[in-house]
Amino acid sequence: MADLSYVSSLPPANQALFQAKIAKKMTFAEIADKLGRSETWVAAAFYGNMPFAEEDIAGLAKVLDLDPLAIESISPAVNFQPDRASKMEMPPRDPTIYRLYEIVLVYGYAFKSVIAEKFGDGIMSAICFTSKIDKEVDEEGTWVKITLRGKFLPYIKY
Amino acid sequence: MADLSYVSSLPPANQALFQAKIAKKMTFAEIADKLGRSETWVAAAFYGNMPFAEEDIAGLAKVLDLDPLAIESISPAVNFQPDRASKMEMPPRDPTIYRLYEIVLVYGYAFKSVIAEKFGDGIMSAICFTSKIDKEVDEEGTWVKITLRGKFLPYIKY
Amino acid sequence: MADLSYVSSLPPANQALFQAKIAKKMTFAEIADKLGRSETWVAAAFYGNMPFAEEDIAGLAKVLDLDPLAIESISPAVNFQPDRASKMEMPPRDPTIYRLYEIVLVYGYAFKSVIAEKFGDGIMSAICFTSKIDKEVDEEGTWVKITLRGKFLPYIKY
Amino acid sequence: MADLSYVSSLPPANQALFQAKIAKKMTFAEIADKLGRSETWVAAAFYGNMPFAEEDIAGLAKVLDLDPLAIESISPAVNFQPDRASKMEMPPRDPTIYRLYEIVLVYGYAFKSVIAEKFGDGIMSAICFTSKIDKEVDEEGTWVKITLRGKFLPYIKY
Amino acid sequence: MADLSYVSSLPPANQALFQAKIAKKMTFAEIADKLGRSETWVAAAFYGNMPFAEEDIAGLAKVLDLDPLAIESISPAVNFQPDRASKMEMPPRDPTIYRLYEIVLVYGYAFKSVIAEKFGDGIMSAICFTSKIDKEVDEEGTWVKITLRGKFLPYIKY
Amino acid sequence: MADLSYVSSLPPANQALFQAKIAKKMTFAEIADKLGRSETWVAAAFYGNMPFAEEDIAGLAKVLDLDPLAIESISPAVNFQPDRASKMEMPPRDPTIYRLYEIVLVYGYAFKSVIAEKFGDGIMSAICFTSKIDKEVDEEGTWVKITLRGKFLPYIKY
Amino acid sequence: MADLSYVSSLPPANQALFQAKIAKKMTFAEIADKLGRSETWVAAAFYGNMPFAEEDIAGLAKVLDLDPLAIESISPAVNFQPDRASKMEMPPRDPTIYRLYEIVLVYGYAFKSVIAEKFGDGIMSAICFTSKIDKEVDEEGTWVKITLRGKFLPYIKY
Amino acid sequence: MADLSYVSSLPPANQALFQAKIAKKMTFAEIADKLGRSETWVAAAFYGNMPFAEEDIAGLAKVLDLDPLAIESISPAVNFQPDRASKMEMPPRDPTIYRLYEIVLVYGYAFKSVIAEKFGDGIMSAICFTSKIDKEVDEEGTWVKITLRGKFLPYIKY
Amino acid sequence: MADLSYVSSLPPANQALFQAKIAKKMTFAEIADKLGRSETWVAAAFYGNMPFAEEDIAGLAKVLDLDPLAIESISPAVNFQPDRASKMEMPPRDPTIYRLYEIVLVYGYAFKSVIAEKFGDGIMSAICFTSKIDKEVDEEGTWVKITLRGKFLPYIKY
Amino acid sequence: MADLSYVSSLPPANQALFQAKIAKKMTFAEIADKLGRSETWVAAAFYGNMPFAEEDIAGLAKVLDLDPLAIESISPAVNFQPDRASKMEMPPRDPTIYRLYEIVLVYGYAFKSVIAEKFGDGIMSAICFTSKIDKEVDEEGTWVKITLRGKFLPYIKY
Repeated sequence: MADLSYVSSLPPANQALFQAKIAKKMTFAEIADKLGRSETWVAAAFYGNMPFAEEDIAGLAKVLDLDPLAIESISPAVNFQPDRASKMEMPPRDPTIYRLYEIVLVYGYAFKSVIAEKFGDGIMSAICFTSKIDKEVDEEGTWVKITLRGKFLPYIKY
Repeated sequence: MADLSYVSSLPPANQALFQAKIAKKMTFAEIADKLGRSETWVAAAFYGNMPFAEEDIAGLAKVLDLDPLAIESISPAVNFQPDRASKMEMPPRDPTIYRLYEIVLVYGYAFKSVIAEKFGDGIMSAICFTSKIDKEVDEEGTWVKITLRGKFLPYIKY
Repeated sequence: MADLSYVSSLPPANQALFQAKIAKKMTFAEIADKLGRSETWVAAAFYGNMPFAEEDIAGLAKVLDLDPLAIESISPAVNFQPDRASKMEMPPRDPTIYRLYEIVLVYGYAFKSVIAEKFGDGIMSAICFTSKIDKEVDEEGTWVKITLRGKFLPYIKY
Repeated sequence: MADLSYVSSLPPANQALFQAKIAKKMTFAEIADKLGRSETWVAAAFYGNMPFAEEDIAGLAKVLDLDPLAIESISPAVNFQPDRASKMEMPPRDPTIYRLYEIVLVYGYAFKSVIAEKFGDGIMSAICFTSKIDKEVDEEGTWVKITLRGKFLPYIKY
Repeated sequence: MADLSYVSSLPPANQALFQAKIAKKMTFAEIADKLGRSETWVAAAFYGNMPFAEEDIAGLAKVLDLDPLAIESISPAVNFQPDRASKMEMPPRDPTIYRLYEIVLVYGYAFKSVIAEKFGDGIMSAICFTSKIDKEVDEEGTWVKITLRGKFLPYIKY
Repeated sequence: MADLSYVSSLPPANQALFQAKIAKKMTFAEIADKLGRSETWVAAAFYGNMPFAEEDIAGLAKVLDLDPLAIESISPAVNFQPDRASKMEMPPRDPTIYRLYEIVLVYGYAFKSVIAEKFGDGIMSAICFTSKIDKEVDEEGTWVKITLRGKFLPYIKY
Repeated sequence: MADLSYVSSLPPANQALFQAKIAKKMTFAEIADKLGRSETWVAAAFYGNMPFAEEDIAGLAKVLDLDPLAIESISPAVNFQPDRASKMEMPPRDPTIYRLYEIVLVYGYAFKSVIAEKFGDGIMSAICFTSKIDKEVDEEGTWVKITLRGKFLPYIKY
Repeated sequence: MADLSYVSSLPPANQALFQAKIAKKMTFAEIADKLGRSETWVAAAFYGNMPFAEEDIAGLAKVLDLDPLAIESISPAVNFQPDRASKMEMPPRDPTIYRLYEIVLVYGYAFKSVIAEKFGDGIMSAICFTSKIDKEVDEEGTWVKITLRGKFLPYIKY
Repeated sequence: MADLSYVSSLPPANQALFQAKIAKKMTFAEIADKLGRSETWVAAAFYGNMPFAEEDIAGLAKVLDLDPLAIESISPAVNFQPDRASKMEMPPRDPTIYRLYEIVLVYGYAFKSVIAEKFGDGIMSAICFTSKIDKEVDEEGTWVKITLRGKFLPYIKY
Repeated sequence: MADLSYVSSLPPANQALFQAKIAKKMTFAEIADKLGRSETWVAAAFYGNMPFAEEDIAGLAKVLDLDPLAIESISPAVNFQPDRASKMEMPPRDPTIYRLYEIVLVYGYAFKSVIAEKFGDGIMSAICFTSKIDKEVDEEGTWVKITLRGKFLPYIKY
């Protein structure tokens, strides 16, 4: 098992998921594919930030050869509500995560202004939202492409 | 002129750019198009977070009918170095920018893990990096799509 | 049981309440109805932020089939005093709670000014206070309506 | 003019609005009534947290006997984008605003859980959102009633 | 004039009060006596944390030989609302104020428990509140006696 | 036993005191009376912020029917030094304690100035210090009266 | 004049003192000697952290050839109260001051314990307090010796 | 044993030292005397902020009747490196330690300036450093005298 | 074993490495030499901030006489991803680490400007990066030389 | 002139240096060469973090064609003491400076341990310290090499 500091601070059910994933040597992409979900959402759910649906719980038990009891505590059957981001500290100390934070620092106002010009006064929803990560290779090297897609929500004037 | 708090804290040259942009009623997209640059990069440069090239300075003066002296202080001719993000506070209080910050909070570890699985131990560069914002409309509504693309940099083992 | 990070940091008696609630598959609304209390107050008391009355303790034991000993430590019989909000961090990382915080950020001065104009110099009490959450559905969608009602307390001039 | 510390930190156009309001001895309720807007939204717009529409700018100039030039910088005609909450510090030091903050501290998890039970996994939008403040008097005293109403946004499972 | 850092950060009307007080060489006790107010409340009002009543404004102009125009901006006639505590930083760096802060650090839980035992679940109001400072001299030396007196507000069970 | 979060973070000896106090259903006032101490000081000592004297340890064992071994670790016999306020966080999240903090925020400079005028340049000691809490009832309601009394310490000019 | 950032943030009277000191090329030791004060106290008073006595004001005007009006605002004649340490940020960024801070970090508990063993339960006063800095040279090099001397204040048991 | 919060957070070997010291009823001065060390350094080493030498470990075992195994983990024999100040929080909440912190707040710039005038541009080393605490009694009372002595290190101009 | 606070907070596998290193009385330099790695990288990997390669895991087991099972959880075989710097607090309290932090404080802008002049607009990578520490002795004493070497990454203009 | 935010917050003399440098189109390397100093030290002195010597002031006036009066305020002739790092915020928002900060985050404990093993218990001085930045080009690209060299200072055992 990966004894990452972060994983070891998660609830037992999430730790069980990570252990089974390691034992099965499966990637998030492979698991997501089996569940009919996307890779980033499944990863977020492993970390406890998104709630699995009833059918995901069943699927995980099957795909990862897990005793369903080990993960029932995060099932909608028991009305599980994720405590999103409860363990994440800001600013992030991890360099990979910090780079995303730095993009907010450096491009925050630019992104806000472009959204305002293209869409009007409002925000990109982080709730009605999907994301994905692609790998692109060209002559200059290998590129990480992160796509963030959220509904535009206009402010009400009332 | 827009007397945004944030803009009024920028150096005079950047304030001059914003005033001229308002007077001309041009969007960042239109200006970027004239300069042969992309919209988000130009917006970041207006906010002082990216340095214009010599030819951009010339282009801006022409497109925005600006006295070149008003913006020479941010030209490479005087060896201008941007003090990136020097005015941005974290956590962001503005709701549009906060949603980007929240995505880092909620998806930080998920994105990190997916990058690690797809690319190995390393980061997505925020330097060797481009971004864009697209508008998509479908039957469910209007969507903001933000694309972040950075070079994958593997950690050296030494 | 829901192994929410937050719940697992609560005192044993509160954890016992949450476990019994899950086992009984009851909502806060149903429990509140049985106790003759309101839903939000009962939820706050489950999280340890409000103290149950003697009769609530008896009612909970009955409604949730709980051994009274499991929750006697939070009974007024032992002079229990809640350590309100002792575990809540600010700014909140959870998106649902953050939106409430953002409303304070964006409307704080507006609410203050309207209270001053309508009531004079003083505050809305957060102690002599009640709250409720209603669901409204119309052609535009589903709406959350939160009502906060507190006594107006004028500052003394002395 | 009220020389409140907070107002004096606002952009000139917003200060002009406050001065005219004082000179006219009008309340936010009266101004809102003239504009066909609601009181809390107008107050938020005076503090620079909401953008007036084109017709609001015209209405304000008329109602407050203001030179339109004094407030053109916050008009949509110049593509004004409010820098929401840019001056608000947290935790709030002002007691009236702190009480709202304390309600988030004490009821944050309770409100989150009740929303989850009544609506499912999601949030109350702070964007697609309205608010109002009412005064109620009964035999126990005078009460402030704040109503917060926002669209329920469910998380996407993807 | 006393050019205290703190005073120089106050609005002009408050600075005018301090200047006049120094010119007249009057203490807060003397001014309070003339106004029929108490010393600590008057001092708090000088610092902008309490709003003078209409008659106080008239009284101050007379007692301090002040042009009423110099302080009209903090009069109820212009609907002045104090921005309480907006300049005070915590933890306080000033040693006199820090000692009060330290008393909260060291006695916070003790005071809370004694209030709970003597009064029940609730708080001492800081709004419906008065204070005074007395000097006592005995054989052991000179003593500062601060009396804080606020209404007990019980939490509602609802 | 009261399983207050705060109490459960105290050293075992202090937890034993709280348990015995609950078992005996005694108030701090009653215990203080038996020890010949004052109520607020005894409460502070229960929370570990003041050190009991040798005779207090003996008295507590008797009054609370406690095995002296359970509390010997906080006796002067073993040279116990309290780690004052080591668990208290600022700003306080608990509303009762926050109100005391707010009084420092709102009256800090006023109290400082009145002390300076009445006593000269110096502080009210928080060490050579006593406190008490009284209950007063009049036609307006019930009042909490907190008295803070500390020696005036003048700054040395050297 | 030394345009130190810190000095330029002080009130005008203190800036005047620094300018005169530079113009006269006098050290704090020389000025202190003329005033019959000690060097560290005089330096602290220059920085606005200690209040000069009436005779010090007269002495400074004479020794530094200063127009008394330039410094009357910090004279006891106008009831000047210093806003001690109002500009100092913690942790200190300046390396010389940081080393003192580090000594508190590294020796804080050690000093506390030794004081407790040698004196009993109490503190070293920072009010009834003097300090001095000596230079010692031996074969190992040059040494800074800082002596801090404050009255021992025992906690009252009450 | 003293169950100080702080001590209980130290590594087992340090806790063993404190327990043995209490059992032996020895002061730091007595232990230091036996080891041929100074009192403040020994106290700092007990708290884990200074590393004992090989001969100190032997001496401690003998003086305190300690099983050497209980403290071998902090011996140079196992290449122990102290994690200095890792548990100390700033600002300190303990009043005794806070007074030292306040001296840095109030005298920081004064001490810096006097050092600069007496020694030139540089610092007092906190590494090549010794300290001691003396007790002085005179007619005015009892005084704590702390002496800090560190090598002067001049900045290199290069 | 060294019971450093920091080490005891690391995952079990990393603690096992430190224990074996102490038992073998090997330095990082000796271990690095056996693995064909550099000393600083190996130390960073011991602290969990760099991931060992498959062959490093094998090498460590051999060199340190470790049961491979004790460290398999940090092997690439189980897809271990380090949670870099997750335990490091800033500002650092440890004096040795603080000095590095202070160099960033004092030289941050200088280093940035020199890099800009020598290389153009960009950064020194902390990912594509190596470091080493050398000891140099001359007549003035002993010197620590830290060499930081990272790829220059220019910002893209797009 | 470069209107960098950071530079515009420096004292007038330092701003004058930057303006002259831009007018002369000289690099720090060229200026350092003329003064017989090193590039990084000169850059730090331009930013106000190192004090020029008397001969440097003369040299700068000559090399940069500066009126000596413009920079006399930072000359040793007026006993100038730099307020080192007074404007630098941590964590740094600028990406170039952040990378240095990240190196402390990721390598802090590794560097500390290697220093301890190679040198014993002590620190690398940041005062008796020099630095330089070199450019290296090889087939893999362009590298920034930063060399930090400080005296080893051993802790005294006393």
